[in-house]
Formats: sequence, C-alpha cells, structure tokens
Amino acid sequence: MSTLVTGISELVTHHPELGSLTDAALVHADGLVRWVGRAADAPPADTRVDLGGRAVVPGFVDSHAHLVFAGDRSAEFAARMAGQAYDGGGIASTVAATRAASDDDLRALLAARVAEMRAQGTTTVEIKSGYGLTVDDERRALRLAGEVTSETTFLGAHVVPAGAARDAYVRLVAGEMLAACAPYARWIDVFCEPASPHAFDADEARTVLEAGRAAGLGLRVHGNQLAAGPGVGLAVELGAASVDHCTHLSDADVDALAVGDTVATLLPGVEFSTRSPYPDARRLLDAGATVALATDCNPGTCFSSSMPLMIALAVREMGMTPAEALWAATAGAARALRRSDIGVIAPGMHADLTVLDAPSHLHLAYRPGVPIARALECSGA
Amino acid sequence: MSTLVTGISELVTHHPELGSLTDAALVHADGLVRWVGRAADAPPADTRVDLGGRAVVPGFVDSHAHLVFAGDRSAEFAARMAGQAYDGGGIASTVAATRAASDDDLRALLAARVAEMRAQGTTTVEIKSGYGLTVDDERRALRLAGEVTSETTFLGAHVVPAGAARDAYVRLVAGEMLAACAPYARWIDVFCEPASPHAFDADEARTVLEAGRAAGLGLRVHGNQLAAGPGVGLAVELGAASVDHCTHLSDADVDALAVGDTVATLLPGVEFSTRSPYPDARRLLDAGATVALATDCNPGTCFSSSMPLMIALAVREMGMTPAEALWAATAGAARALRRSDIGVIAPGMHADLTVLDAPSHLHLAYRPGVPIARALECSGA
Repeated sequence: MSTLVTGISELVTHHPELGSLTDAALVHADGLVRWVGRAADAPPADTRVDLGGRAVVPGFVDSHAHLVFAGDRSAEFAARMAGQAYDGGGIASTVAATRAASDDDLRALLAARVAEMRAQGTTTVEIKSGYGLTVDDERRALRLAGEVTSETTFLGAHVVPAGAARDAYVRLVAGEMLAACAPYARWIDVFCEPASPHAFDADEARTVLEAGRAAGLGLRVHGNQLAAGPGVGLAVELGAASVDHCTHLSDADVDALAVGDTVATLLPGVEFSTRSPYPDARRLLDAGATVALATDCNPGTCFSSSMPLMIALAVREMGMTPAEALWAATAGAARALRRSDIGVIAPGMHADLTVLDAPSHLHLAYRPGVPIARALECSGA
Repeated sequence: MSTLVTGISELVTHHPELGSLTDAALVHADGLVRWVGRAADAPPADTRVDLGGRAVVPGFVDSHAHLVFAGDRSAEFAARMAGQAYDGGGIASTVAATRAASDDDLRALLAARVAEMRAQGTTTVEIKSGYGLTVDDERRALRLAGEVTSETTFLGAHVVPAGAARDAYVRLVAGEMLAACAPYARWIDVFCEPASPHAFDADEARTVLEAGRAAGLGLRVHGNQLAAGPGVGLAVELGAASVDHCTHLSDADVDALAVGDTVATLLPGVEFSTRSPYPDARRLLDAGATVALATDCNPGTCFSSSMPLMIALAVREMGMTPAEALWAATAGAARALRRSDIGVIAPGMHADLTVLDAPSHLHLAYRPGVPIARALECSGA
C-alpha cells in the first residue's frame, strides 16, 4: 500500500540531484521511498499523511552505541563531574551487572532504548557487545542485539577484564570468543587506546581485527579518544569502515583519513559527558575526510541517545554547519556502516524518515535539547 | 478527589525536613500536595497512579522566557554559528513579525510553546513582552501572555526601537506604555547593558524600574550579559527579585548578590547558542548567592525551552552539582519569582510535579538531550 506524505516545508534528501526541496511531498510503499518531488507534482497514492508544514530529513543513523547493558552508573558520572578522572575502569561495574541480568531483563532494556532512540528520530542503530567479556556473555549480547538491529558489532576487545592476563585475553577474543560470536555479528571492533591501562595497544588491536576479518566481519575501531595514538593509522591501513572518537589526531592521521575510505566518526556526547576537549570536525572536513556523528550511547562516558544533541554540539563546539552536521548524522553515518540504502531520501532507498516539529533542518541546532525530531512510522518491510 | 502516587524511586522535595526520599509516595488533591512520605506509610486516597519506579522532582520553574513572538530567525542563528557577532540588533526582525501577527496567531504560538515546555517538565513559566515596543503591541503581548501564565513581565525596555530617539522612548516606556501595560503585568524588566547600542544604560534602567515600582510592579533586570556593567548593582540596590544573565561579574557584583535578596538567574542556553563563555555558578554559590536557572527561550539568542538541558549545561560548564542545578531550576527559580508555593514538594504546596523516566535526579545531567522529564497531570485548581 502506497502513502503520499504532504505538508513538507523542507525535504532534505542528501541526494546529489534532488538536493533540498521546499513545499515538497514524497510517496513510500512497502518500506521504500517511491517518489520525491514538489507537492504540486505529487502522484496519487492509496493513503495520505499531511505533516502540516514540517521538515523531513533522512532518519538518523546512530552508527556507534553500546545498548546491551544493565546497571546504573549515574553516581560515577556525578563523581566525574566533581573532578574524578575517566580511564575506562568503570566498565567493570557494568560488566558485573550485565552478566547478572537475565535475557529478558536485557531484552526489556534494549527495547526501551531502541524505542527511546526512535522517538528522537533515529531509524538505524549499530549495537556493540563488550559488557560480557566471556565467550557466553558476549555471544548472548550479540544474539539479543540481533533481535533489534542488523548492525551488530562484536566488541570482546572493549577492555581487558579485571584479573585477566592481557595476552591470554587477546588470544581468547581472537580465537574462541570470535568463533562463538561471529555468527551473530556483522562487525568487529576494538578499543585501541594505549593511554588506557584497560584498553588495547596497536599489536593487540591488529591481532583482533585481522582475526575478525578472517572470520568475515567488517572492521571498526575505537581510536584516539584519550590521546594521540595508533588507532586511526591502524584503521585506515586495515580498511576499517570507521574509526570512532578521533578526538586527538596528528596531521598524519588527518591525511590518512582524507585519503582512505575509513570514516571518521565523532562522538561529541562523550566529550560533553566527560568534560573533555571536542574533536575538530572542521579540520577533518577541510582536509577532505568523511565525517559521521553518533551518540556512543553507553552508561560510562555518554548516556545520551539524542542524535539532535550531537548535531547541536557539532555546530556549537566542532565547527560544523547545521547542514554538515545533519549529513554526518545520516549519510555520513550510513557510510560508516557501508550502507547505501539509508541516509538519503530518494526512490529505492529505505523509507527511513524523520519529521521535525520545525520548518527546517536548521532547528536541530537552533533548538538544543528540545525533542523536535521523531521517526515517521512508515516501514513496511 | 485525592490521588495517591506510588512507585517513586526517588522523591526530591527540596523541603528542609523532608529532604529526598527513596521508595516514596505522595497524595495530591485539588491541585495541592496533601501528604509526602515513604510508600509503606501511604494513606488511602480516591485514586492511585503507579509510576513504576521513576523519580519525581518539583516541576521546573522557567523564570525567564520570551514566548510572545512570531517569525523565524534560524538563518540568523546559522550565520552567527558561522562567525557573525550578536549585539541585540536582530530583535527588530522579530518585532516586525510579531506586530504583523494576529492575536490568534500569537495565541496558537504561545499555546504550542507552553505545551512544549510542559512536555519537558516545566510547570511554571514567566513570559515577557518586549517584541511589541509600542503601547498597543506591548499591552497586547501581556494580555495574551496573561491567558497562559500569572507570571507576566512588562519588557518595553527590551531594546530602543529602530529609528526611535532614546530619551523619548524611555519616557514612553516609563509613562504611557507602563500605564497601559501595568494592569496586565506582575513584573517590570529592563535590558540594562551599556555594551549594546540597542539596550539601556544605568540611568535609563533606573528610570524604567522606579516607574514600574511606583506602578506596583515587581522588579527584574537583564544585566551583565555581554560585559561587566551596572545591571547587577542596580538590581540589588533597588531590591529586584532577580537579575538575569550574570555572565560577566565583578567581585563587587558577587558580594552584592551574596548579601542582598536578589536572585542571580543564569541562562546557559544563551551561552550555548551564542558560543559565549558560561557564567561561573560555582563562584556565586561559594559566595552565598542564590542561583536560579532558566531557559531565556527566545528566537534570537536561545530558542531552547529545555530546562533539562539547562541543568546538564550547568553541571558540564558551570561547576554545579546535579542537585544544585535541580534546586536552581525549581526552588531557586521560584525565589526568583518570589513564590513560596512552588519549587518544593510538601503538604500545602502546589502539586506541580515532574516525573523522570529514570531512577534518580542525577539522570537529568547524566542523559543530556534525552527527553526524560514530563509534567505529571495532577492539577485541580
């Protein structure tokens, strides 16, 4: 059944030929966009929805989120705001709570988080494991994540578990744990951050990523969050789809990102919630790198699921224009997931549409904190 | 009819004896709180609402907002983010659009904005005029504002209108315009900011405020937003209920605020949306001043209506703890309005209650941008 959507004050398509349209309309059917154009030219359809003069943008693509967890770390957050440093050690408390939770507990938490995201305009979310850190717990996290998204990422190499020997743990992740998790994952990821005693150095990260690639998984890297380091270089060298954080970059890192096809995914909610300096998006864009924005929604360093806040922060703090930030949160993040069917509104693309209670996309940055975005219900597939 | 509210994981009362309670309950009837305590001790009531383990805090009091306006200034915002300076001159475009709007247009905009605030947990909002700048247009703004709030503020002295002579305009505001507006206003306010060519100096501000006081209005001041200046000193000297912005303060200003009973109302959304340095809340709190938080929701310098974002910014940027920020956004803002019936949850107070989709108030800062707060429907009066 086809649906004609009218009353679109501004339609941001991100399609090179369609561009942005005013007084626009579109038709979707069976979960796909079928037609896009000026309202005056709209074809007939089975049903009609009028948005009353609202903007429509591609549904947000949150390409970096850690949603399979239990427990509450708000007290750790408050302590950090009062001056305590972050080095990744607090993850252990989430690991303990997640292991102790039942499948149904985790399912309920996941469902609530995905619904919360959708209510804020996110239509695709990548979900990582990484709070299990045993073969069974990591596999369970990915199995549950796979019930709500196709973008599942095995992150056994999130931190070295308390009490584990580094070498043995890396062997486990790249061996038995990977074998158990690969059937449930599209991606493999590693927290490559020599500045943290809990994370992995370049050799360890390479071991994990190469094993993942051999198992058929796409590559992602957490890199250069806490200090300059080898993460970006490794990601580009291995052809990772994305390297995420990119807060501290050398000139060589920027050059590598500009030349390679690895997306630089910036996560400004982390800098907001850890009171850290923001990454320099302008520098990356001016160099020609592809930039994505995502939330990193997680209980330790950024418990925000708000893509509109990431857009507002990118404009306030990172030198992006509202249009660049919106592109990064949709089309850019789609590239970070190597997806060509989302992030753009055009015939044949997924009908993943986000409506704004506002006349234009500028309001995503102009109205910080206000919940003006929501996913339009129009999936059919 | 009385209602028992149960399932409250944390109840923040701001009452000196009640404090914060876990596993709490409360009873309200006819718009007033009747009982507060532990769930196990709850008395019977006519009906019951269970919140399923959510936190309840006093409804947010947004003591500074400019909601009576028409037009769209998102393009000016985008230009400012690209480097253009703010000096208050853009107000003229809002004045033109507001004058051109019909009463019903403005009513619809006001209703939508108040509803948007309520959906984010704000239960009391102060609304200023200031986009009319003629006798008839200012009176109309206050008449319409009075249809949705009792906290109406006459701000004829927002800016000197384009083309007007300063002296003549100040005489008009303090004379004929005040006489026309006073019946519709509780407060009078002035933008005392010698650093802006559009705003008012200390003598002009004093003329306006003294005339307002003589007409029976309470006093408020916009001061020290763009630079150190006379606003705070004047506000404290005249016994204003609040001086708002307080971004640039001398030691003498801080001392005056610590001794007087004028509240320092901080508006961090303005600094967010104008990319300006934030006020130092910690310095004010440590000196003993009373601090409030508000949005300043307006089309020029902060089109955010989100009190949760103001709390998150106060914690991230201004040295406040989550508890201090919540107090400032509720009890502190109530003091800025000289109200003793809101901002605190206790028997006899207004049943203005905000529910969080979270176990504790810490999540207001821990979950930035996520719409976790909403006003509980329980008014009876």
